[in-house]
Amino acid sequence: MAKSYLSMSAAELQAELESVKKEYEDIKAQGLSIDMSRGKPGSDQLDISDGMLKVFDDGNFKCEAGLDVRNYGLLDGIPECKKLFADLLEVKPENVIVGGNSSLSLMFDYVSQCMYQGAGFTPWSQQGKVKFLCPCPGYDRHFAICEYFGIEMINIPMTAEGPDMDAIEEAVKDSSVKGMFCVPKYSNPQGITFSAETVKRIANLDTAADDFRIIWDNAYCVHDLTETTDELVNIFDVLPEKNKDMVIEVASTSKISYPGAGVSCLVSSVDNIKAILKRLTVQAISYDKVNMLRHVKFFKDVQGIKEHMQLHAKILKPKFDAVIDTLNSDLAGLGIAEWNEPNGGYFISLDVTGGSASRVGVLCKEAGVTLTNVGATFPYGKDPTDSNIRIAPTFPTPEVLSKAVKVLTVSVKLACLENLTR
Amino acid sequence: MAKSYLSMSAAELQAELESVKKEYEDIKAQGLSIDMSRGKPGSDQLDISDGMLKVFDDGNFKCEAGLDVRNYGLLDGIPECKKLFADLLEVKPENVIVGGNSSLSLMFDYVSQCMYQGAGFTPWSQQGKVKFLCPCPGYDRHFAICEYFGIEMINIPMTAEGPDMDAIEEAVKDSSVKGMFCVPKYSNPQGITFSAETVKRIANLDTAADDFRIIWDNAYCVHDLTETTDELVNIFDVLPEKNKDMVIEVASTSKISYPGAGVSCLVSSVDNIKAILKRLTVQAISYDKVNMLRHVKFFKDVQGIKEHMQLHAKILKPKFDAVIDTLNSDLAGLGIAEWNEPNGGYFISLDVTGGSASRVGVLCKEAGVTLTNVGATFPYGKDPTDSNIRIAPTFPTPEVLSKAVKVLTVSVKLACLENLTR
Repeated sequence: MAKSYLSMSAAELQAELESVKKEYEDIKAQGLSIDMSRGKPGSDQLDISDGMLKVFDDGNFKCEAGLDVRNYGLLDGIPECKKLFADLLEVKPENVIVGGNSSLSLMFDYVSQCMYQGAGFTPWSQQGKVKFLCPCPGYDRHFAICEYFGIEMINIPMTAEGPDMDAIEEAVKDSSVKGMFCVPKYSNPQGITFSAETVKRIANLDTAADDFRIIWDNAYCVHDLTETTDELVNIFDVLPEKNKDMVIEVASTSKISYPGAGVSCLVSSVDNIKAILKRLTVQAISYDKVNMLRHVKFFKDVQGIKEHMQLHAKILKPKFDAVIDTLNSDLAGLGIAEWNEPNGGYFISLDVTGGSASRVGVLCKEAGVTLTNVGATFPYGKDPTDSNIRIAPTFPTPEVLSKAVKVLTVSVKLACLENLTR
Repeated sequence: MAKSYLSMSAAELQAELESVKKEYEDIKAQGLSIDMSRGKPGSDQLDISDGMLKVFDDGNFKCEAGLDVRNYGLLDGIPECKKLFADLLEVKPENVIVGGNSSLSLMFDYVSQCMYQGAGFTPWSQQGKVKFLCPCPGYDRHFAICEYFGIEMINIPMTAEGPDMDAIEEAVKDSSVKGMFCVPKYSNPQGITFSAETVKRIANLDTAADDFRIIWDNAYCVHDLTETTDELVNIFDVLPEKNKDMVIEVASTSKISYPGAGVSCLVSSVDNIKAILKRLTVQAISYDKVNMLRHVKFFKDVQGIKEHMQLHAKILKPKFDAVIDTLNSDLAGLGIAEWNEPNGGYFISLDVTGGSASRVGVLCKEAGVTLTNVGATFPYGKDPTDSNIRIAPTFPTPEVLSKAVKVLTVSVKLACLENLTR
């Protein structure tokens, strides 16, 4: 076990700084160029879905409703795709709308609808200031939606059980707090799955706003990495009558089949589905039903999706292991960093001490490794303690990844030593 | 030539009424069930694009930008698809965003953006009442977008040259008039192509509003039916500097490849493209690039699209002819109806006299033929003279179509005779 930096003498720290500085310069001299900024699948992961492009070799384009999927119609999606998502998320097909290639668009469009047409009441935008609760670290694109619509974001700290429920229960007493984004399973970036207790407390929230909405972004619902899988309570199963319209769940096949060429879905109460279809009937004639049927023909059922996800896990697990192993071997015991070992999802979250995350980002960048912008995991891009770094290990090959994480750990050590010797 | 109803004596009209009534009852007894309500391609038209589903048999998913189209990225579309649409619409690729499967969504989202974020100025919704000019008869889904956003619609009569430009030039002196929807080529439903003079007058409009926008829905840009094709002046070629941000053109392959599984595009000034991408970067990660590359690989270039459109015309021309022939043989000279013979597009527009269009719709429905809702071609679904009927001849087979149009012509005669003998 390495000696903690925190227990080193000034002289020891200085010697370590010189040694790490040399290590960093050597790495920098390699002239690397590695992008670890986004949660993109690698191309070997994309290949395993290519069978999907052959499913129409049979020339059969009819969906269960008897309609030719190549033509107009079926605004809420083809029945078999509604059923596939319903089975996957353990809800009923009548609560599902199948969308286009982007669950992000479903979320953006829904928030827009609430802002300007309302969530069953006066439009949010006509009720004065609108605030959202943002469990963080979280997903930068959720924060970007809030920022676009001028929604004020309130930081809610994450715990190992999910967002700090005491803070949330207190915050929702303010009727201008209209909603919250959550990634309840294998959260982005920490890989935390909300505990049963947390899900129940969220479901039973006593909100001052009658038109409070939770965007339940279940992006990683079947994205297990190991045999030890996290279990998420189905929030609709524990939703009391008074909150029946409170939850809008979304998911997609972006990290099941193809990112950007998959199929998304939205799940909510029948009343919410009706209100959304009222907009959709003006906004579109239908989403891409050929792609919906392509997915159903390829995956067949939830079991098919689960088996497919094991192929992804087989590719991803060694990458996550490479990161964790390097973090363990290089940083364990130094007292300057903490990280998670998630059972699924797309990220590893690294917290460094002493407000040095931005400096780590700069050092990595200068050594040719692009991380997710430091700060991006917090509202307004501002990490109050400048500590969180999101590691996206999925895109690089394991060999490249090992090099990249080495750059990262050396940068973490260097940034912290700079701080400690200042 | 049949004798005009208008020159018949009361006795002659009564005799004709009895005869037509019997004809109608005979037709009704057939128990038909035919849907002519929407401009849907027939399944033989869909079949000619099925080669598109084999283009990835080569396993090559790289686009010109070097990026794997199966993965995230390229918010504005893959370069080769931007070029294809740019060539098709005779504009530059930098003025193009390639969208998803629906140009309707591009229009809806753009109007939403103008309403709540603004078109370079204060959001429309914060400037008091917002009005749009609506050339009519027109496309019901354009009117639905206006209605959804609470935009007041002003009827602008169509002429054989396009919308009444005198009326438009007068109307835009009102600064609350913020925009106009147009289908400039083979207009829906009349099949009118705006004359060069009309396009130039539109391009040079002197609008009181600085943030006036024209949605130029070029849905039928290559949708010729005959060798005699209409030519539309490229509005961007005649747009003066002062109006450089005034036009938002959209188009799609919905009636080139598959409706609902095609690719759409939006064309505008670089500043407008920037403003739209600023929204899009929050709303989506990218549109479906696999489908974009699928289309480019299949069509190759504009010549490929034009040859493909000839296959569509070969299927569609006999259908249009069947309608026109029946209208000619049954209604010509009666003095009760007028119709167009378009060189392209998806519709035939029939105008009946004496405010009897609604009655025709009811008679058709009762005899098993569903037309587009009468009135739908006008804002708020209200045809001020109750005269316009949109015929969508593309979906039924020619045999079915002949039966349907027979129902229609008999219904027209009956409705007019009912009026004239009242």
